[in-house]
Amino acid sequence: MKIYDRPGFPNPSRIRIVLAEKGLGPQIEFVSVDLIGAEHKQAAFLAKNPSGVIPVLELDDGTLISESTAITEYLDNLHGHPTLTGTTPREKALIHMMQKRADDELIDPIGIYFHHATPGLGPLLQAYKSPEWADRGEWGNRQKAKALQGMRYFNQVLKTQPYVAGGKFSMADITVFAALNFADAAGIAFPEDCIALQAWRAKVSELPSVKNRSGQNFVPEDLKRLGF
Amino acid sequence: MKIYDRPGFPNPSRIRIVLAEKGLGPQIEFVSVDLIGAEHKQAAFLAKNPSGVIPVLELDDGTLISESTAITEYLDNLHGHPTLTGTTPREKALIHMMQKRADDELIDPIGIYFHHATPGLGPLLQAYKSPEWADRGEWGNRQKAKALQGMRYFNQVLKTQPYVAGGKFSMADITVFAALNFADAAGIAFPEDCIALQAWRAKVSELPSVKNRSGQNFVPEDLKRLGF
Repeated sequence: MKIYDRPGFPNPSRIRIVLAEKGLGPQIEFVSVDLIGAEHKQAAFLAKNPSGVIPVLELDDGTLISESTAITEYLDNLHGHPTLTGTTPREKALIHMMQKRADDELIDPIGIYFHHATPGLGPLLQAYKSPEWADRGEWGNRQKAKALQGMRYFNQVLKTQPYVAGGKFSMADITVFAALNFADAAGIAFPEDCIALQAWRAKVSELPSVKNRSGQNFVPEDLKRLGF
Repeated sequence: MKIYDRPGFPNPSRIRIVLAEKGLGPQIEFVSVDLIGAEHKQAAFLAKNPSGVIPVLELDDGTLISESTAITEYLDNLHGHPTLTGTTPREKALIHMMQKRADDELIDPIGIYFHHATPGLGPLLQAYKSPEWADRGEWGNRQKAKALQGMRYFNQVLKTQPYVAGGKFSMADITVFAALNFADAAGIAFPEDCIALQAWRAKVSELPSVKNRSGQNFVPEDLKRLGF
């Protein structure tokens, strides 16, 4: 199996945690995609994923799977023992509900804020910003408020249960965790009043699959290009 | 089990098709939510789904499941014989990939266009439109172009395979089908050059779960309030 991604970026980091949880890392050949150079918006990559985003999983038979939720479903079910996407109908449903909320309330607005209200990944990606965003930072700025509201929602949830979708660590926790790291990188300050979310974040940080940051850190070249 | 929804609207129609496919309709008590009256944005409903959207599935133990994808996972797996969400890891992954694309490329932009560039569901919901949308129909109008691009993408897909996620009818077909009906209602003309998509749509229309429109038509009161 091949994964097209770039270390350090939010959605790739979700799949790197899934791979660590499932012990599948050694079976993967990683192919680096130059996001800062807008490689994911060029024809060669668009032939693999018309949506122009990473990560993409390519199976040995050539099947291409994109969208982190779909890749997680594949990897988690590969050996018949799902641990991140649920086993009972109720678990599957609650995990997919919280996964969708993590996308809609955190990952998406943080992404819009980062790409449209900050310098984002730099000038090479400017051409791929929608016109209404390019001339309207206000729209991006409002997304910051939406993301903060999303954090407060998850904080409420975590006041009464240990993990985002209930009693067990799941795909939805991985998405929320990656989203909070993305918010840090985008310059959205973590709200100090989100005590339960902060405690959950500290707990998740200590999980072996998360603490071992193999392939989760930015490559030095990218940090330099981003001005760090 | 209870489902909070309103007949005729796009996401409720997805779940009505799922129920018909699974033969589960008779086990459901439907509770009508007055969308045109903005009932889904009031405290009583927000306690059931903080995202303020329908449908919501309430299990007999009080568990609340929202987001159509999550509800479909529950209903499809309820009796241990999933037919709409895949059985192999590859099927699950491809269905979730296409489901996400149907959300992002069709349902979401059509929804934004309908609510923000047309009168939508009328004045009672105006208060729940984001400020940048209320003063900027242009943003909504661009979503129409995005939805048409999404239709062309699915048309390409359906040139080489019988259903949206491959060889079998799945959750992703239901979402694309509901999205095309939503586009009709929103006044987005079906692109005549999308021959494969049109042929697929005609085929899906004839499926028993789709053809039997039990609970899929608008209630007469709503049609009157919408000016039909």
